[in-house]
Amino acid sequence: MNLDELRHDIDRIDAKILALLGERMEKALLTKAFKSEVLDEGREAAVLDKVRRTSRCLVGPDFTAEVWRRIMAESKALQAAGLRTVGFQGEHGAYSEMALKAWDPKAAAIPCREFETVFDAVEKGRFDAGVVPVENTLGGLVGPVNSILAWTSLRVVAAIDLPVSHCLMAPAGTDHREIRTVYSHPQGLAQCRRFIERNKLDPEPYYDTAGSARMLAETGLKGAAAIASRFAAELYDLEIIKEGVQDAEVNRTRFFVLSKEAGEEDGDKCSAVFGATDKAGALFSVLEIFAKAEINLTRIESVPDKPGDYAIFVDFEGSPREDRVAGAIEAAKATARDFRLLGCYRETRI
Amino acid sequence: MNLDELRHDIDRIDAKILALLGERMEKALLTKAFKSEVLDEGREAAVLDKVRRTSRCLVGPDFTAEVWRRIMAESKALQAAGLRTVGFQGEHGAYSEMALKAWDPKAAAIPCREFETVFDAVEKGRFDAGVVPVENTLGGLVGPVNSILAWTSLRVVAAIDLPVSHCLMAPAGTDHREIRTVYSHPQGLAQCRRFIERNKLDPEPYYDTAGSARMLAETGLKGAAAIASRFAAELYDLEIIKEGVQDAEVNRTRFFVLSKEAGEEDGDKCSAVFGATDKAGALFSVLEIFAKAEINLTRIESVPDKPGDYAIFVDFEGSPREDRVAGAIEAAKATARDFRLLGCYRETRI
Repeated sequence: MNLDELRHDIDRIDAKILALLGERMEKALLTKAFKSEVLDEGREAAVLDKVRRTSRCLVGPDFTAEVWRRIMAESKALQAAGLRTVGFQGEHGAYSEMALKAWDPKAAAIPCREFETVFDAVEKGRFDAGVVPVENTLGGLVGPVNSILAWTSLRVVAAIDLPVSHCLMAPAGTDHREIRTVYSHPQGLAQCRRFIERNKLDPEPYYDTAGSARMLAETGLKGAAAIASRFAAELYDLEIIKEGVQDAEVNRTRFFVLSKEAGEEDGDKCSAVFGATDKAGALFSVLEIFAKAEINLTRIESVPDKPGDYAIFVDFEGSPREDRVAGAIEAAKATARDFRLLGCYRETRI
Repeated sequence: MNLDELRHDIDRIDAKILALLGERMEKALLTKAFKSEVLDEGREAAVLDKVRRTSRCLVGPDFTAEVWRRIMAESKALQAAGLRTVGFQGEHGAYSEMALKAWDPKAAAIPCREFETVFDAVEKGRFDAGVVPVENTLGGLVGPVNSILAWTSLRVVAAIDLPVSHCLMAPAGTDHREIRTVYSHPQGLAQCRRFIERNKLDPEPYYDTAGSARMLAETGLKGAAAIASRFAAELYDLEIIKEGVQDAEVNRTRFFVLSKEAGEEDGDKCSAVFGATDKAGALFSVLEIFAKAEINLTRIESVPDKPGDYAIFVDFEGSPREDRVAGAIEAAKATARDFRLLGCYRETRI
């Protein structure tokens, strides 16, 4: 134990406290969705009482109460600011969060472990919206998301098309030659396979790309690096050793923003889904409708549903405010099984 | 996710932040031991800069800077208060910490993973003192501690004899009938074996008694309880379901307080150690010296050292300020191999 070690320990403790404060603000913001149901009086006093009571010897109750009063005042200010709460799958620093910020820079981004949690919380009104990846240029469809999309009652209110540029990062001051292991989500590692091999690194799968960056920052693991977004490097104060380490030159992911209510803005793009047993036939009859109406289809994709059954996603240009488009939608509804407009929205390409 | 769950999550986050703040204060206090070696200027600014830079979206940099300024002011106040730093093995809430507090209620108790760390840090001047268990009425000697004691250059400056009363505890509001599993250090579980069997609980070994209480408080695990000290229950805000759940009626542990310098206080009890190959013979000659000087021996214990070799610990009443005692010590030094006074101290029985 020397001074440097103690200071590194303190830095790591600070990083953990910061992350926990962030989580605390998120949870406090989410309680807003319930505020009509309950009286909030007494809760603040109960929290103060509890933290005072459980203050450890070096952390005196008065100091604790002072800090928590400040934290709760900040929570209330955030609640009053009327920020949109938007869920995404992954840890802070995820590409989904970058897409979310591109859509609404002020939104409160709420990390979720599973895609299902994002959909579920938006459906129940716990989050104002959710952001999920739907397709990317390398891996194609994001399977689980599209399976849920086929059944959700949520509406697509925006789309974001984001370049995915993986960065190799490590704690500042790491000697690059000492790096032996590289942590990331298996997909991130797969997308950088050649880079990893060329540099003779050991790929170590981690449950999340941004999570691997966070882990490095919090543990200060030696001889290790993470592959994640530039955003994650900034968030966790890691040094970017090399940017754009993915093997393919083009690596883009497209995200949907989902909400309970259809978007208010005037969209110029639509997404719809319908069911098909006889895939080719059903697809052909819908394509025919859109072709006759001279509507440009920008995406056609099928997702296996029940055995022998498919959910077919189509994206097309235009808006139901145009008679031509509204007519085609009506015709498709009459032709295809369960034809449903997921939303009409604006797409942002970054 | 409902309001109760969110509030429980927030409570758990608060418990974690509190624990981290405690750790931070400890580390900051320990940097004091190095303050002569370095200039401290710039460190505070660097910390503020780092926490500002890594503030997440809901945790704004200005709020962060404000909170950290308050934290660092508290650290400085603690450093200025001249608290003694005293190491102990285990987590906060350990019986060792109870002994430590009985000796010096104001001391900054520093948890260590290993006994070796406690000795090492006191030897290097990183801690002002250390508290270690040396014997208990059920388990006898605390093996690893006595092996280190046989060789340490540290001095015993106080002893504390503490009743060990194990409590069964769980998060407040736990339905007692739902408790299936009980966590504790294997020794704690062994000492409560009959109680655990009678109540048909599953014993689940954990690395530390107080650590199991902390884990329950932080995770809010359902259907689980911990066995630890009353002090741990208070610290982690757990409800005591039953006190004194150990099988044996008498369960006491004796602790030594160790320091680099001999105690200044007038002690009335001494501890010494010497080496012996021919155990009975060496022991007899030392006993003879003490018997002739009419010095009361309160403890005689041998610890295997090298094969065929023993370290023999003797505790006796009196002080080297008395000629009778000083003479016996001199005679023992001339007779026994490596006879060494570990310290003269006062013993507190609680």
